[in-house]
Amino acid sequence: MAHEKNISKAVIKRLPRYYRFLGELLNQGVTRISSRLLSEKMGITASQIRQDLNCFGGFGQQGYGYNVNVLYEEIASILGLDRQVDAILIGAGNLGRAVANHMEFEQRGFRLIGIFDENPALIGQTIKGVLVRSTDKIEPFCRVYHPTAAILCIPKTVTKEISDRLIDAGVKGFWNFSHYDLALNQKERGIVVENVHMSDSLMTLSYELKTLLSEEN
Amino acid sequence: MAHEKNISKAVIKRLPRYYRFLGELLNQGVTRISSRLLSEKMGITASQIRQDLNCFGGFGQQGYGYNVNVLYEEIASILGLDRQVDAILIGAGNLGRAVANHMEFEQRGFRLIGIFDENPALIGQTIKGVLVRSTDKIEPFCRVYHPTAAILCIPKTVTKEISDRLIDAGVKGFWNFSHYDLALNQKERGIVVENVHMSDSLMTLSYELKTLLSEEN
Repeated sequence: MAHEKNISKAVIKRLPRYYRFLGELLNQGVTRISSRLLSEKMGITASQIRQDLNCFGGFGQQGYGYNVNVLYEEIASILGLDRQVDAILIGAGNLGRAVANHMEFEQRGFRLIGIFDENPALIGQTIKGVLVRSTDKIEPFCRVYHPTAAILCIPKTVTKEISDRLIDAGVKGFWNFSHYDLALNQKERGIVVENVHMSDSLMTLSYELKTLLSEEN
Repeated sequence: MAHEKNISKAVIKRLPRYYRFLGELLNQGVTRISSRLLSEKMGITASQIRQDLNCFGGFGQQGYGYNVNVLYEEIASILGLDRQVDAILIGAGNLGRAVANHMEFEQRGFRLIGIFDENPALIGQTIKGVLVRSTDKIEPFCRVYHPTAAILCIPKTVTKEISDRLIDAGVKGFWNFSHYDLALNQKERGIVVENVHMSDSLMTLSYELKTLLSEEN
């Protein structure tokens, strides 16, 4: 991928969405698509789509459109979904279990190799075939298995302590569902973080509903 | 709020984050803050903060900074968090339960008044004091209680059918966790949707990790 280095952050942010739509097209047996049709399906302008996809080589052909499978595989490769990084989950409550059960890690670039919780009632259970271990065992586990990523489904009161321990143990990437913002000093610490603030999205819905209802009145 | 109509979508998207940070400051007993300090805490430039907050009246005073409580309440009001909209949850599996248990709906502009699932083992249970009813009962429930919002924690195969039924029953806002994209034709149908695509964020982490690890090598 000669052009990969130059892809802007804004384009990267849109790639997962392209990837999802292209995956659905493949499921429906669609093998090629025009930027116009893709545009209608995704609610993005056709020129934006052409501009985005031209960033990484331009697979569209005049009068033919995009080869759905080639584009799908290319985006997978750019996102790193074609290799698997070992990940551990901290927190096996409702949210942790939902994440473990519903996420298709293997199709998203990750492999779930360990789960940790401090609740004795959960330790020893298995979730999706993965044993739940005590959080005391995080360090010895990391020394043996070297997970690269950690998924945090833990209360915000313990997020700083747990994430510091994980960074010391060699974890480089965090998918953080706790309400504690891990965003700062990422670069200095040599880590990357995706914070999932579900309540931010709920507040955005609140605003949109308020606006919608006031327009109706 | 004379200026409210003119707030851009980009600023609105940042408001939940300001709200979170200001809430934490209040918890710590901080009553005023300079844009410089807020900037350091949030990792946003001070000029961006001044520009954002000036959009809705400019609460900063030269040499004093922002009154944290006034700003917090003002953002709550803009987001509509100072009133509560009735919401129902469809899907009481792990994810639905996690959402019901962990989300502070009352502080985010919503009140959870009903939960629905098609699994007979779950019907009749209560989650956070709310009875789980059969999905057959959605329409009669809506005729009596008129919920304005619905939270969808259901498989994508049933999302279209369920959301069509909810729209017919008068639901105006959707917080959608299913993998089915409800984004299109919102305006025509008089609804608003916040799609929560958790796997998009996981794919973004995959990309960021790939980039980080390739820089290290």
